Amino acid sequence: MTPREAIQDLMAEYGLLIDEDRLEDWIALFAERCSYRVVSRENVEQGLPQVLMLCTNKDMLLDRISSYRQVNEYNFHSDRHVIGAPRFHGEQAGLWRIEASYSLFQTDVEGVSRLFSVGRYDTTIVFEHGHARLRDMTVIVDTAAIPTLLATPI
Amino acid sequence: MTPREAIQDLMAEYGLLIDEDRLEDWIALFAERCSYRVVSRENVEQGLPQVLMLCTNKDMLLDRISSYRQVNEYNFHSDRHVIGAPRFHGEQAGLWRIEASYSLFQTDVEGVSRLFSVGRYDTTIVFEHGHARLRDMTVIVDTAAIPTLLATPI
Amino acid sequence: MTPREAIQDLMAEYGLLIDEDRLEDWIALFAERCSYRVVSRENVEQGLPQVLMLCTNKDMLLDRISSYRQVNEYNFHSDRHVIGAPRFHGEQAGLWRIEASYSLFQTDVEGVSRLFSVGRYDTTIVFEHGHARLRDMTVIVDTAAIPTLLATPI
Repeated sequence: MTPREAIQDLMAEYGLLIDEDRLEDWIALFAERCSYRVVSRENVEQGLPQVLMLCTNKDMLLDRISSYRQVNEYNFHSDRHVIGAPRFHGEQAGLWRIEASYSLFQTDVEGVSRLFSVGRYDTTIVFEHGHARLRDMTVIVDTAAIPTLLATPI
Repeated sequence: MTPREAIQDLMAEYGLLIDEDRLEDWIALFAERCSYRVVSRENVEQGLPQVLMLCTNKDMLLDRISSYRQVNEYNFHSDRHVIGAPRFHGEQAGLWRIEASYSLFQTDVEGVSRLFSVGRYDTTIVFEHGHARLRDMTVIVDTAAIPTLLATPI
Repeated sequence: MTPREAIQDLMAEYGLLIDEDRLEDWIALFAERCSYRVVSRENVEQGLPQVLMLCTNKDMLLDRISSYRQVNEYNFHSDRHVIGAPRFHGEQAGLWRIEASYSLFQTDVEGVSRLFSVGRYDTTIVFEHGHARLRDMTVIVDTAAIPTLLATPI
């Protein structure tokens, strides 16, 4: 498998694991040293430091998912990601950078599917023991006005 | 062409043929022995056997499309699939398995495009005479509450 | 990089550059001799020659973007493309043809993201100085009833 293919597969896995509510497996896609942040397009364009969600290491990601599990005994919605093909920026010092557009739909308990969020992933990827892993994942949502509380990752 | 590329192309073709209303050509994407079923996520998660649509061989698929053609003299909507990159499970005994998220939009006669269904394909693929063909295609819709009658395949 | 990969990357770039409002860089994806047109599915199916937008060379594309920049001092919306994997028709006399489904979402100043248009790209691609470039790009929108004025390219 080429790095290109491994990165394509990593992004497919990223979306499907969230959609299956396998959030612990989703965390396993991250590198040992990693970060995950959600920011809005407005803030990025205006150079504002504000973030909607920030985890600067794997323990913070685990904590977040574990709190989420405790608070949400039942799933109130299901997610569905459809992610576009990546823009490949190439490799530098062992880090690959890609960007990819996403559309995220949610289906509620009444069975209605709706557009929830669109935006872009800006991601660096590192290979650990031969596996592509997320090093720094920035989710740039096209709007911070997200219709419900930001509970699960995007 | 690698099996990976042939499978990517098969899934692109799958969506575009439905969207072009070339349903007879769409059936030709299936293997000689094949099945096609539509189930809901709720049913899969609760282990219920209920299906929304089931064809266990190619003749059933042909029958279904032919009835559809007789009933619908005019097209009342057009479809548009946008399908995510596949998760590849590899090959076992000549069968390749993949999963892929889809978003399906419909445009009605008044020219309004709407989200119709989101969900996931879970598919086994076999190579016949060098061509990738669908062996067992399960469409897992995120909700069974689909706004109109299930007329065309998803 | 194979032609297949170069074409995949070109289409990813196509969507992301529009979404970043980098329309001048988007024009640079076109070949020296090129065309860009937006037509509706109804018109294509009925063999009607009507087009929603037509640029038959690069200067026309540049003019259009430049007028757009003068009229729109501020961005009134942001775009988000999610494009499906291409159907590859192969190469003929140096021209590669592909088709790909797209979904296009817009986010307005109030922060609401909505489905804006779905449809299909039908594109010929030529390699110039080793780079994949758009020769003739036809955007077939599933409906001409697009909710706002057609300002930016699709």
